[in-house]
Amino acid sequence: EQQTREMAGDTTSLHTLLDSLTKVNNSSERASKLFQWFVHPIPSKSFFRDTWEKKPLLIKRQKQDYYKGLFSTAEFDRILRDDNVQFGVNLDVTSYINGKRETHNPPGRALPYTVWDYYESGCSLRMLNPQAFSSTVWNVLSILQELFGSMAGANVYLTPAGTQGFAPHYDDIEAFVVQLEGKKHWRVYNPRSEDEVLPVVSSPNFSQGEIGKPILDVVLEAGDLLYFPRGFIHQGDCLPDAHSLHITVSSYQKNSWGDLLTKLVPAAVEIAMEEDVEFRKGLPLDYLSYMGVQNSDKEDPRRAEFLSHIGSLMKKLVGYAPVDAAVDQKARGFLHDCLPPLLTPAEKASSVYGAPARWEDGEALGLTVHVRQQTRIRLIRAGIARLCSDGEEVSLYHTAENSRVYHKEELKSFEIKPEHTDAMEFLLHSYPKFVTVSSLPCDTAEEKRSLADLLFEKGLIHTADPLKSE
Amino acid sequence: EQQTREMAGDTTSLHTLLDSLTKVNNSSERASKLFQWFVHPIPSKSFFRDTWEKKPLLIKRQKQDYYKGLFSTAEFDRILRDDNVQFGVNLDVTSYINGKRETHNPPGRALPYTVWDYYESGCSLRMLNPQAFSSTVWNVLSILQELFGSMAGANVYLTPAGTQGFAPHYDDIEAFVVQLEGKKHWRVYNPRSEDEVLPVVSSPNFSQGEIGKPILDVVLEAGDLLYFPRGFIHQGDCLPDAHSLHITVSSYQKNSWGDLLTKLVPAAVEIAMEEDVEFRKGLPLDYLSYMGVQNSDKEDPRRAEFLSHIGSLMKKLVGYAPVDAAVDQKARGFLHDCLPPLLTPAEKASSVYGAPARWEDGEALGLTVHVRQQTRIRLIRAGIARLCSDGEEVSLYHTAENSRVYHKEELKSFEIKPEHTDAMEFLLHSYPKFVTVSSLPCDTAEEKRSLADLLFEKGLIHTADPLKSE
Amino acid sequence: EQQTREMAGDTTSLHTLLDSLTKVNNSSERASKLFQWFVHPIPSKSFFRDTWEKKPLLIKRQKQDYYKGLFSTAEFDRILRDDNVQFGVNLDVTSYINGKRETHNPPGRALPYTVWDYYESGCSLRMLNPQAFSSTVWNVLSILQELFGSMAGANVYLTPAGTQGFAPHYDDIEAFVVQLEGKKHWRVYNPRSEDEVLPVVSSPNFSQGEIGKPILDVVLEAGDLLYFPRGFIHQGDCLPDAHSLHITVSSYQKNSWGDLLTKLVPAAVEIAMEEDVEFRKGLPLDYLSYMGVQNSDKEDPRRAEFLSHIGSLMKKLVGYAPVDAAVDQKARGFLHDCLPPLLTPAEKASSVYGAPARWEDGEALGLTVHVRQQTRIRLIRAGIARLCSDGEEVSLYHTAENSRVYHKEELKSFEIKPEHTDAMEFLLHSYPKFVTVSSLPCDTAEEKRSLADLLFEKGLIHTADPLKSE
Amino acid sequence: EQQTREMAGDTTSLHTLLDSLTKVNNSSERASKLFQWFVHPIPSKSFFRDTWEKKPLLIKRQKQDYYKGLFSTAEFDRILRDDNVQFGVNLDVTSYINGKRETHNPPGRALPYTVWDYYESGCSLRMLNPQAFSSTVWNVLSILQELFGSMAGANVYLTPAGTQGFAPHYDDIEAFVVQLEGKKHWRVYNPRSEDEVLPVVSSPNFSQGEIGKPILDVVLEAGDLLYFPRGFIHQGDCLPDAHSLHITVSSYQKNSWGDLLTKLVPAAVEIAMEEDVEFRKGLPLDYLSYMGVQNSDKEDPRRAEFLSHIGSLMKKLVGYAPVDAAVDQKARGFLHDCLPPLLTPAEKASSVYGAPARWEDGEALGLTVHVRQQTRIRLIRAGIARLCSDGEEVSLYHTAENSRVYHKEELKSFEIKPEHTDAMEFLLHSYPKFVTVSSLPCDTAEEKRSLADLLFEKGLIHTADPLKSE
Repeated sequence: EQQTREMAGDTTSLHTLLDSLTKVNNSSERASKLFQWFVHPIPSKSFFRDTWEKKPLLIKRQKQDYYKGLFSTAEFDRILRDDNVQFGVNLDVTSYINGKRETHNPPGRALPYTVWDYYESGCSLRMLNPQAFSSTVWNVLSILQELFGSMAGANVYLTPAGTQGFAPHYDDIEAFVVQLEGKKHWRVYNPRSEDEVLPVVSSPNFSQGEIGKPILDVVLEAGDLLYFPRGFIHQGDCLPDAHSLHITVSSYQKNSWGDLLTKLVPAAVEIAMEEDVEFRKGLPLDYLSYMGVQNSDKEDPRRAEFLSHIGSLMKKLVGYAPVDAAVDQKARGFLHDCLPPLLTPAEKASSVYGAPARWEDGEALGLTVHVRQQTRIRLIRAGIARLCSDGEEVSLYHTAENSRVYHKEELKSFEIKPEHTDAMEFLLHSYPKFVTVSSLPCDTAEEKRSLADLLFEKGLIHTADPLKSE
Repeated sequence: EQQTREMAGDTTSLHTLLDSLTKVNNSSERASKLFQWFVHPIPSKSFFRDTWEKKPLLIKRQKQDYYKGLFSTAEFDRILRDDNVQFGVNLDVTSYINGKRETHNPPGRALPYTVWDYYESGCSLRMLNPQAFSSTVWNVLSILQELFGSMAGANVYLTPAGTQGFAPHYDDIEAFVVQLEGKKHWRVYNPRSEDEVLPVVSSPNFSQGEIGKPILDVVLEAGDLLYFPRGFIHQGDCLPDAHSLHITVSSYQKNSWGDLLTKLVPAAVEIAMEEDVEFRKGLPLDYLSYMGVQNSDKEDPRRAEFLSHIGSLMKKLVGYAPVDAAVDQKARGFLHDCLPPLLTPAEKASSVYGAPARWEDGEALGLTVHVRQQTRIRLIRAGIARLCSDGEEVSLYHTAENSRVYHKEELKSFEIKPEHTDAMEFLLHSYPKFVTVSSLPCDTAEEKRSLADLLFEKGLIHTADPLKSE
Repeated sequence: EQQTREMAGDTTSLHTLLDSLTKVNNSSERASKLFQWFVHPIPSKSFFRDTWEKKPLLIKRQKQDYYKGLFSTAEFDRILRDDNVQFGVNLDVTSYINGKRETHNPPGRALPYTVWDYYESGCSLRMLNPQAFSSTVWNVLSILQELFGSMAGANVYLTPAGTQGFAPHYDDIEAFVVQLEGKKHWRVYNPRSEDEVLPVVSSPNFSQGEIGKPILDVVLEAGDLLYFPRGFIHQGDCLPDAHSLHITVSSYQKNSWGDLLTKLVPAAVEIAMEEDVEFRKGLPLDYLSYMGVQNSDKEDPRRAEFLSHIGSLMKKLVGYAPVDAAVDQKARGFLHDCLPPLLTPAEKASSVYGAPARWEDGEALGLTVHVRQQTRIRLIRAGIARLCSDGEEVSLYHTAENSRVYHKEELKSFEIKPEHTDAMEFLLHSYPKFVTVSSLPCDTAEEKRSLADLLFEKGLIHTADPLKSE
Repeated sequence: EQQTREMAGDTTSLHTLLDSLTKVNNSSERASKLFQWFVHPIPSKSFFRDTWEKKPLLIKRQKQDYYKGLFSTAEFDRILRDDNVQFGVNLDVTSYINGKRETHNPPGRALPYTVWDYYESGCSLRMLNPQAFSSTVWNVLSILQELFGSMAGANVYLTPAGTQGFAPHYDDIEAFVVQLEGKKHWRVYNPRSEDEVLPVVSSPNFSQGEIGKPILDVVLEAGDLLYFPRGFIHQGDCLPDAHSLHITVSSYQKNSWGDLLTKLVPAAVEIAMEEDVEFRKGLPLDYLSYMGVQNSDKEDPRRAEFLSHIGSLMKKLVGYAPVDAAVDQKARGFLHDCLPPLLTPAEKASSVYGAPARWEDGEALGLTVHVRQQTRIRLIRAGIARLCSDGEEVSLYHTAENSRVYHKEELKSFEIKPEHTDAMEFLLHSYPKFVTVSSLPCDTAEEKRSLADLLFEKGLIHTADPLKSE
């Protein structure tokens, strides 16, 4: 507690914090601490209890360096110069003038020569997927995703003084607007109706006449944070005297109970049909004559009976719902969405990335160094991997080979053989504790070693101490 | 009652019966009467109450001409000669010798020269889709499909004396084996387990050791009927002294409550997500850490809470289930599966097919004859069409342009304009009564006439009296 | 000679002619005789020498029954009534009024009730593919295709008095307009330029201002014939006093030397590259710096050298051109386009279609009857099959299982084994002579018999005398 | 001359050479000089006259550092460590033992821990596409591709002492084997037949018995070069006392006269059909009866006539062959294959990549700096772009946005407006001279400036002096 407060305290810059987090011995805890710093001084617990998915929150800090180091316009310029930023893919050039929203992307690469010209002429710049170009953004999001259990994304927005780049609208994600430089005037509006509370899809652009009066009208300054749930309409514009740079961190897209049910209930019907003859019995011979839209106004007692039978079957479905399997289906989607972990130096040194195997002085060296029975191992991150069963086979899905570019790689997995399943589960549940290879619940020492070696090769585990040549 | 008994009586041949059915004023009633004849002397009502989907039934008649006219080996030969029967598409050549089941189809057209050669060498012949070649089979199935509310199909089997063509197996349909010529020895076995009662898919071929002892061991003779539900294993072989010809009429493939739920529950989730914010709320932040297969043995109170919330949401789903829309989705599948109606001469004469428009003596004649306000109209068949709503639009789906070849045509439909919807529903519900065009609930006489003319052109309605030139 | 003149003479109606053709012992000869009747009194030889692909030809006969039996409006009405004619697929409803060409096809089946209504209101009717519905048209075209060596197609046009159904245009086929009933006023125009002589694709609709003055302005009456080559612009309209029915027989679509070269020259390059190292040698290192559009105005001696080398390689290509293989590729396209043969009763009786194998009196009979060594056989038609080599394998492509509907069936073929190749070629070249099975150049009697039986089963050969039970 | 000899002289290391090449004012000249160094002391001119595509060449240098800096095992190790090298995509693990060639790629990323283990157990490593990971290899290949006018590729091979990694085979490319470290024993064999001289596709693996006796049997040591044309069979194995690292530089895959003809002749036929009625005339009515494989042995005078006409049409084709357009089609393939240029610091500074537009001190600066009428410009590389005409439009295709990964990007192009075409051609032909914007042949100063600005933005031109703020 004390430690957290200190870390999150006034004098802590982001890079000091990230550095101190490398010493936190559990990636879930890292995530909690980082999020706590994010919403400081609101305790995360109260944030998630009172605010999350419920209402906007403004944190004014009067500390313009609070988020310093997360991203800057200098880094924006550096990225344009050094990286292959493509208009329309990684960068959008937009304007919103007199109620008209336009996109001005030319084809091809976005170089400073062209981009700053657009900016100077009053266009806003939106960098999509900054985590692909900025290691700090990558690091922060890859830590936060373990807290959310749902993809953490980000966009960066740079807006010239006196302009607005986007029309009022709402999104389908929880949004954390982090003001990095300059100032921006924000207006936030309630969802327009019950149907638009926590909506499933983003809205189109609204006209000013469609959105009512703001419930929040505020100027964000560097160091401030504005949070609002999906469904809350918002618009931001720059005052005449200052440009604005902010990053919006987002999460919880398609992560609702209904999204889980979408995967769960078809599977439940399938299982019910396999296991319960009631679901396999034929429909009544004559049901088409009283059911269906053309018969929906008919006063036919058979309709009530039919509906009641459907109702009782649907209730019975609960008993066949493969909840854990559906959660795993959802989890696999999340694992595919995840950023790969940005490993700390110590994690690198104690994993396959730091293994002593190397070419040196004209020969391959360090080849005898492997995990052994007494080597102490654990997962390299709490959320790096997940054991799922796809029918017959058990597979381990993992994020170690994901790309910083969204879905550029397929979701990676490999089979876990029956003799390794218990040991794999044991390892997953042991985290954050290290365990010796010999303690893995396998039948033979060779099986223990081969599982440990496989996981080590794939970069999914690291050792308590770096492997060394003897 | 009396009339039915007579029709189904001993002296009634199929063609006399079909002829008398043309005078029955309601296609649903025709279907009932035809089915009653089929299972005579068992009353259909008791058949469907006691036997259907429950257990096999054998009807021995000692009347070898009972089903005469339905199909014959002579017709089989005629079809091979006159129609484009393709091996592997319309005809299978099979054998089952010493426990080995084989298919012997050569490529190309099946001509008598080749087919009878296979038969003589001991192969069985299975004609798929005989309704495409035999008008009587087409007629019978197209009538029965209105009773079943589910596709009625058929296969014909011709087996040489002393041979067996197929291995023991069970099917995914209700089967009516109608012995047409010769004799066949049948053995029927109980489903092997609860899981195979009313199964969803057909079985592979079984060896004799896998199927236990028959519950029925009988010789079918011409005129006899053997019914068994899906899941009951069966095999038939010819005695050394007689070949066998039978037709198997089938129905109720994928027509269970579960099949309806497969369409219903995903739609229910979608609607619940639109209408009820409980379904749109986010999943718990940490649910991936205690749910999923890798956590299924964990004793964590959050698991019970999660499962309980899933349970209550699934129960709530009942309230959002669009049952009529799902029935219509199922109904559209059935309409697509349907055989087109085989119209009686009277139906032809009083429909578009008998309209007086024609070319005669060098000019087009009969063009002034159209439906008028006082014309009395009704659907040409109870099951010819169905009114469904696909979101915005209301459409009428129909079977009038279906093909005798399964799914050769796309399902046909056309839009019913808002001003015609009530009248269309009125017409559907009026059947079998004729109503005047002027009685249709439309705002104007022109709207009434245009709907009637559209339906007449499409062949969906007929008139109480043939249209005549004045 | 004498016989031909008589057959084509005034008193010969089409059906008498077709009947007499069944006695002509060679299908190529049948084709010649039928075509001679078609263009009578012009000798075909002079027609093909002086007119074909060169200029329009009008034959006025003053014999309105000359083409009687080919097609009629009565048959048009019968087809609409009995066959599944679909608007937009088999029938187009068109108009051309005040220079505006329109198509009025509703969706669905074209029944007399609807079709004659359109006709009465002044629309023209074009039946596409009448050969699918009319046996006579099928018969005539299937005979003519053997003359043309290129698909023979047809459309039927019915036009109300005083109207025009189509705008002026030219086609990509040789057209024979056969006036069947009534009268039609035709105007034919020269190709507009050298580039439009024998064009590869049809023209769009022209306005009257684009086409110059007609070179032919004539009224066709029943019994008359109008021929014009592809590229000649034409338009036809009905006089106020008479409707018109004509059929246009067409051929030679994409059947030019260039179409053959399109298949030939890429194959020639491929072979040259395999066989001649000159074609495999590398291009000059620097050719991109002086060749290409951006360098086409450069005065660089290397350009001339490069072009000259290309020229000499192209000339060398002639030596590698696989002309026979390219002709076979073209021939396979033609075989796929072909109508199946309409067999004469005698052809049927002496082929697999008339073989005595049958079901009779409860058993399969006539099964011992097969082709034997002394059986005399020949192809059932000159153009029924073609032997082609696709690399390793030799295959026989044939039209016996083609459909009357264009390309409804895939092109059919089967492998001819090496031991049958010479015999197959022998059979192909023997036509129209019958040869005994024993005379086939195979090594063994069994090989001779098996080839003959295979071809007999496929319907490709017939026997000098019908096979009979002994 | 003098300068070249010095540059290529004994004491010149690769990096000194590459550095001196940055001062060579013409990228084609750079390519020549680099290639001269490559094959020193053979003059390139004699190499291309006497050896290229003709016979193997061995250059023994006794200078093991001659190619130093091009690639090393240390760099191999560095790449495995730092870059995302994937087994099967970027790296192959192979062995050839007792005549059996095997590939041992596991799935996933190739890390030193795994790779060196395979190496130690005797497997060879082949790195595909090292240019994606090594800037020097990228630089060298991107320079050489301008010499070859054809893609220059490379593979790196690391082989343990006493092993062989590949079976004898021949390739479809000109190969330059550059020995970098250690030693390798090579045997080179003549093409087995005329047909395998300069072959179009690579061979399968040969057994030792299929390849005859070597014409070259030699040990390559670091600094040595072995060249052999496509079609020459080769195999290399390591002596027991030394491992081997070599890089094979390749070019001229599918770059033969025949490859150009493959694009040219179908286009020639198309044009001939448009322009010359002889090509549109119909084939003879009866050609199918004497042409084709089944008639190829016929002695029919019509065959000779047919073949002769085909021959004369093929010769006529030369006159219609669009050589420049076909070259451009080939050139576009090459541009797509090309590596992007690795710009020198001076090129960067004087191009869009060095333009002063930037973010600094909270604002966008350097925005007023653009090319002006007096600015002197030229293409940034001779081969960076090519002007092609695709029918109506003229487009500039270029390599500036290509990827170092083969075909990862689509070929890039943009339209050149009619008013810019002459100026674009002028610029292309002016290289390597700088020209002022005002000297571009456009109608207006604004047109000149807009073309120059477009090309500058795309990175295709640079300026004689870096653009500076005024």
